[in-house]
Amino acid sequence: MSEPAEAREARSVPPATIARLPGYLRALGTLVARGVVTASSGVLAGLAGVRPEQLRKDLSLMGAHGRRGVGYDVQALRAELEATLGLTRERRVVIVGVGNLGRALARYSGFPDRGFVVVGLVDADPAVVGTRTAGLVVEPLEELAGVVRRLEATIAVIATPAEAAQDVCDRLVEAGVSGILSFAPRPLRVPVGVDLRSVDLGSELQILAFHDHRRSSAGR
Amino acid sequence: MSEPAEAREARSVPPATIARLPGYLRALGTLVARGVVTASSGVLAGLAGVRPEQLRKDLSLMGAHGRRGVGYDVQALRAELEATLGLTRERRVVIVGVGNLGRALARYSGFPDRGFVVVGLVDADPAVVGTRTAGLVVEPLEELAGVVRRLEATIAVIATPAEAAQDVCDRLVEAGVSGILSFAPRPLRVPVGVDLRSVDLGSELQILAFHDHRRSSAGR
Repeated sequence: MSEPAEAREARSVPPATIARLPGYLRALGTLVARGVVTASSGVLAGLAGVRPEQLRKDLSLMGAHGRRGVGYDVQALRAELEATLGLTRERRVVIVGVGNLGRALARYSGFPDRGFVVVGLVDADPAVVGTRTAGLVVEPLEELAGVVRRLEATIAVIATPAEAAQDVCDRLVEAGVSGILSFAPRPLRVPVGVDLRSVDLGSELQILAFHDHRRSSAGR
Repeated sequence: MSEPAEAREARSVPPATIARLPGYLRALGTLVARGVVTASSGVLAGLAGVRPEQLRKDLSLMGAHGRRGVGYDVQALRAELEATLGLTRERRVVIVGVGNLGRALARYSGFPDRGFVVVGLVDADPAVVGTRTAGLVVEPLEELAGVVRRLEATIAVIATPAEAAQDVCDRLVEAGVSGILSFAPRPLRVPVGVDLRSVDLGSELQILAFHDHRRSSAGR
């Protein structure tokens, strides 16, 4: 009935805290680049765009505490957060759907900068299969499971049209990926044990439009 | 001391509800395409990927109520949500930063599908200015304010490197855009009255990595 300490710990960290950790890591990276050795919660929070109380609470949930009058040890805290996020080793990513967005993501420098390497590209379109993007040859959808296993990818990005996304998602789950980032404008179902995050770019603009519309309606 | 009814109303709708409206609209669009006339909250919620109680609560906050035993009038509800989100007229978007991501966004079919038209592209790099993407000629950053006004853009997308993002954001605010969608991996400051939404693709992967890491640490 016992479970590893890490599993217990993982469950106890609220998802909202986890979602803010990459921002803290980014802020720490900025400070390291500037040669800063220690930083107050105020400085760190400012760089991360959160309130200092929020940052202190989040970090204390991760077991990290600043020293009174000194603040946080920038290098040590960065190493700790990297370990917590599992970034001490490179994570391997497969992108499914090599249209405009898929190609841009394959070339996106923000991924390797953050510990992710795109190792495979997959598409259903015979006209796209065999073409080369970012140094990788696009492989056919039928071989998705083999590609994921051969390349030891644990994370997948779905950049397919909405209609294809659930089928691709099911294939990825079956192939054994543990995390999926979907750009398809529709909700996807994944089994327990697989993490799904969705970014719907059209929805983001629609939410901005709502505010714009309210403002103009209100005559401001 | 009085304020327009719409302004009062806008304040009373929780941001989380607003963020779910595009999903409901998407679900309604699917049903319209299938020729469905009425739909229960269960069907709609299933398509939108939320719980039926959540959907009923959100829609009732918007003043929309289903009829018992009949459900929601699909066409009427769609028209109502489009009006609420201000999608009855096209919204004009400028993209700043025409690298891989900016180019992909300029060509992204998910924007026109959702009521947004990319009308202008702007970049700081003289090698990029004057080139053509998606039928638009890239204009120089120094002319950003003029571009925004001339093209009557109200929404902007920032797809620049992190270092340039706050300066671009400030220029956009000054030029009068009301909403900004940023892909820059750093927090940005905007004044009250301007909406900012941020999508940090690297952070999304890091959050997935956290779960992957916890799972493998726990030996599952």
